[in-house]
Amino acid sequence: MGDDDAIVQAARVSYGRGTQRVSESAGLIRYLMRHRHSTPFEMCEIKYHVKLPIFVARQWIRHRTANVNEYSARYSILDREFYIPASEHLAAQSTTNRQGRGAVLDGPEAAEVLRLLAEDAGRNYDHYVEMLNENPDGSPIDPYRQGLARELARMNLTLNTYTQWYWKIDLHNLFHFLSLRADPHAQYEIRAYADVLLQTVEAWVPFAFAAFKEYRLGAFTFSAAMLGALRRMLAGEAVTQETSGLNKREWEELRSALKPAHA
Amino acid sequence: MGDDDAIVQAARVSYGRGTQRVSESAGLIRYLMRHRHSTPFEMCEIKYHVKLPIFVARQWIRHRTANVNEYSARYSILDREFYIPASEHLAAQSTTNRQGRGAVLDGPEAAEVLRLLAEDAGRNYDHYVEMLNENPDGSPIDPYRQGLARELARMNLTLNTYTQWYWKIDLHNLFHFLSLRADPHAQYEIRAYADVLLQTVEAWVPFAFAAFKEYRLGAFTFSAAMLGALRRMLAGEAVTQETSGLNKREWEELRSALKPAHA
Amino acid sequence: MGDDDAIVQAARVSYGRGTQRVSESAGLIRYLMRHRHSTPFEMCEIKYHVKLPIFVARQWIRHRTANVNEYSARYSILDREFYIPASEHLAAQSTTNRQGRGAVLDGPEAAEVLRLLAEDAGRNYDHYVEMLNENPDGSPIDPYRQGLARELARMNLTLNTYTQWYWKIDLHNLFHFLSLRADPHAQYEIRAYADVLLQTVEAWVPFAFAAFKEYRLGAFTFSAAMLGALRRMLAGEAVTQETSGLNKREWEELRSALKPAHA
Amino acid sequence: MGDDDAIVQAARVSYGRGTQRVSESAGLIRYLMRHRHSTPFEMCEIKYHVKLPIFVARQWIRHRTANVNEYSARYSILDREFYIPASEHLAAQSTTNRQGRGAVLDGPEAAEVLRLLAEDAGRNYDHYVEMLNENPDGSPIDPYRQGLARELARMNLTLNTYTQWYWKIDLHNLFHFLSLRADPHAQYEIRAYADVLLQTVEAWVPFAFAAFKEYRLGAFTFSAAMLGALRRMLAGEAVTQETSGLNKREWEELRSALKPAHA
Repeated sequence: MGDDDAIVQAARVSYGRGTQRVSESAGLIRYLMRHRHSTPFEMCEIKYHVKLPIFVARQWIRHRTANVNEYSARYSILDREFYIPASEHLAAQSTTNRQGRGAVLDGPEAAEVLRLLAEDAGRNYDHYVEMLNENPDGSPIDPYRQGLARELARMNLTLNTYTQWYWKIDLHNLFHFLSLRADPHAQYEIRAYADVLLQTVEAWVPFAFAAFKEYRLGAFTFSAAMLGALRRMLAGEAVTQETSGLNKREWEELRSALKPAHA
Repeated sequence: MGDDDAIVQAARVSYGRGTQRVSESAGLIRYLMRHRHSTPFEMCEIKYHVKLPIFVARQWIRHRTANVNEYSARYSILDREFYIPASEHLAAQSTTNRQGRGAVLDGPEAAEVLRLLAEDAGRNYDHYVEMLNENPDGSPIDPYRQGLARELARMNLTLNTYTQWYWKIDLHNLFHFLSLRADPHAQYEIRAYADVLLQTVEAWVPFAFAAFKEYRLGAFTFSAAMLGALRRMLAGEAVTQETSGLNKREWEELRSALKPAHA
Repeated sequence: MGDDDAIVQAARVSYGRGTQRVSESAGLIRYLMRHRHSTPFEMCEIKYHVKLPIFVARQWIRHRTANVNEYSARYSILDREFYIPASEHLAAQSTTNRQGRGAVLDGPEAAEVLRLLAEDAGRNYDHYVEMLNENPDGSPIDPYRQGLARELARMNLTLNTYTQWYWKIDLHNLFHFLSLRADPHAQYEIRAYADVLLQTVEAWVPFAFAAFKEYRLGAFTFSAAMLGALRRMLAGEAVTQETSGLNKREWEELRSALKPAHA
Repeated sequence: MGDDDAIVQAARVSYGRGTQRVSESAGLIRYLMRHRHSTPFEMCEIKYHVKLPIFVARQWIRHRTANVNEYSARYSILDREFYIPASEHLAAQSTTNRQGRGAVLDGPEAAEVLRLLAEDAGRNYDHYVEMLNENPDGSPIDPYRQGLARELARMNLTLNTYTQWYWKIDLHNLFHFLSLRADPHAQYEIRAYADVLLQTVEAWVPFAFAAFKEYRLGAFTFSAAMLGALRRMLAGEAVTQETSGLNKREWEELRSALKPAHA
């Protein structure tokens, strides 16, 4: 629902003559993004059908400004399908960052992890079906006993079991979601979804997407202290972390943002 | 965006096999409405372009679960257009209900009210333009003086001046809006808009609309005490307000809901 | 934050003189509840610290109008603690209701279910710790290998593992939550929480709680067709399901609401 | 409700051991603000009683994530009180910015504007009372005629008439409100309120306020193109607007952010 033109149309009704000088759509959309005029972007709405592991769904649902219809395991039986990471994503706990990942696990260690994940998910699923006592066609496996209620049996499933949902959101809130979940700090497993969503947004609203890249994804916010350090650098001073007033991590972020290779 | 089929599609993903026994869309939609399954209705979204007096806009905006782009009087000049009630809507203050209307005003009294409303709105608008010092084509009226900033001049306008907006909302929240604003307790001026919206909803999602009429608009909620009185009535007892445990107003509401002519 | 007096205070600023005739707080609060004036109830806010199984947390979080801070298994290690139902709650799948429960399982069947649930949850947790390679004091179990990142290892946990969160909500939205989750149609495992919340609300805002019981929890909404049947009953007609215009389930609901024993 | 400690408490439950290394509250709160962890700030809630002109209320209410109880002119009579700007705020329309203000009006022009605003607001209010036909004590002015319903008479009032409300909001959303409304681009009349709110926040949650100043109010976001220009400057290149890839306005914003006097 809606496209770049709907954003422009909404902006022109809101700002009227104020928008006359920005003659074309791309420029107006860039102006709106720069000045945090969020309501025109809310005029666009998109609906996705997503299949995702439950532990990813639990992160995703924290974004409250969307409409969701999830497959319900109270009413229906989930499929025998689990997320098992590819070996190159089997990272160790980072030693420097409590929420991050470190080096990829070695071959034998990785193999053992993969074995445990696959075995446990599979066994738990099989016991789920056994407790339900239900064949794929709905008939009882053992006609002489009762199956456990679906809403109870599901509790035996592991968090990497796949669920699915319809997820409907407006473009402004989708951009907010993407700015958090397409970020390098987001867990890889949700970032992979965010990267796919980014492509759909680029195809859907190319002008809004370009403005989002320029002013949000590719942007960097300097704190008051960072601005102070930056001004001294521009004045020719040789600023170090110690003299910058920044802590080590902020200093590294500043350095990284100013590196020629950045982004 | 979306229609009756989108509601059904969302419900079938959520409730899976649970929906198989309800074979057709109308029945499933009635089921969802009865059981307060709101999320499938959120899959439908509609956008309206509305022109409305500012005092109505102030009631309307209280419904927070919508996306709004309003014509901005900071950026643009409002039109010379006001809401003046028709004589048959010029009601006196109700003497029994603090928020209600009583009898329609008499001819001479009504004429005086209409005169004041029209004169004051017109004069204030003319002074607004005078303060702006701006012709319709944007040129100054008096080239030798400066015009007041738009964001300030607008404060001279009356609350019956028309504004306009795009208003986008999902069907679940639209039903909530309509259940409050198409209600006889709503002010006539916003109810008139709600009545028009109802017609657009009927044309858009006829099954959902029929279910909304059956289970919400045409329904009546009995409080615990009302249910008690009702059961005694059905048992053949001659219940009066005094013996009902209800206050006078609740008793009248109960009587009215049970009258053959109701709704 | 806030109490019955805060509701009254907010109502008096909103409705001003309109509230003078309702001289005392209890009456005014009943009036607000009856007439669906929701905003005064939003002036009260409460925060809970809740420990709950993940599958319950997934239902609970669907209520979007609350503030939540959940224990994060990206940053921290979850405790070895699972929800295992008591035998009297180990119900079979209902044969008449896709989301409901039927009879309680027999002894040997129940024992087998309990064995599977406890064994699978425990084994998966132990493998979770093994993959993390981390002792309770944070030291590595095996100093010669790396532990898997927490954000990955958690996917091996079962849905009955306990999580915890702070949950903050205003009273209006809490009542909405409770009207859905303290309902007999809600899953027992979340209803048990709702029942405890109800007690805290009664202690916190006794007048608002009493009004909620009278006009929401203990109330019953008659659809348009139910009202039609009811009027015919009151007129002395012997209405049956077949002549009522209601389907079988609606008819049963109507009968149940009108039974003397109800509520 | 809540304070700096409530933010820290929520963060510690969410991030658990992850927060151990940040030993004190101020540091943890700065960390949360820097990394856009919004939910701990949502654990704090504040309620204001505000008196404000209707045209300011119309901007303010656009922030949807708050609870509001406004004085209702359907039920009650508004006071005879208007906002009339001080002479030093009577600015002309900006000639370079469609939403901004230019120079302050000259004495005679200002006097004329003030005369019109005061006269029109006063006359319209007097006609409002006349239509209501109601003395301050509630008795009719003219006992031989009926007064117009309040919900209708109010439409004659001007947009600078004062209304009042209770406004309740969590700290995260309050910071969002303040970042937009304490901004130099906001209209002076709402910024004046934002400035007062800022003081109350500083007194209430001093650590969170300091972090907000450092990472939001005093920060500046560089777009991708701005970062590119900045890197070239730091490499010693003499970048001009023409060679910067920025439009004129963006270039000015960049220059201003890098000026020693900034902030």
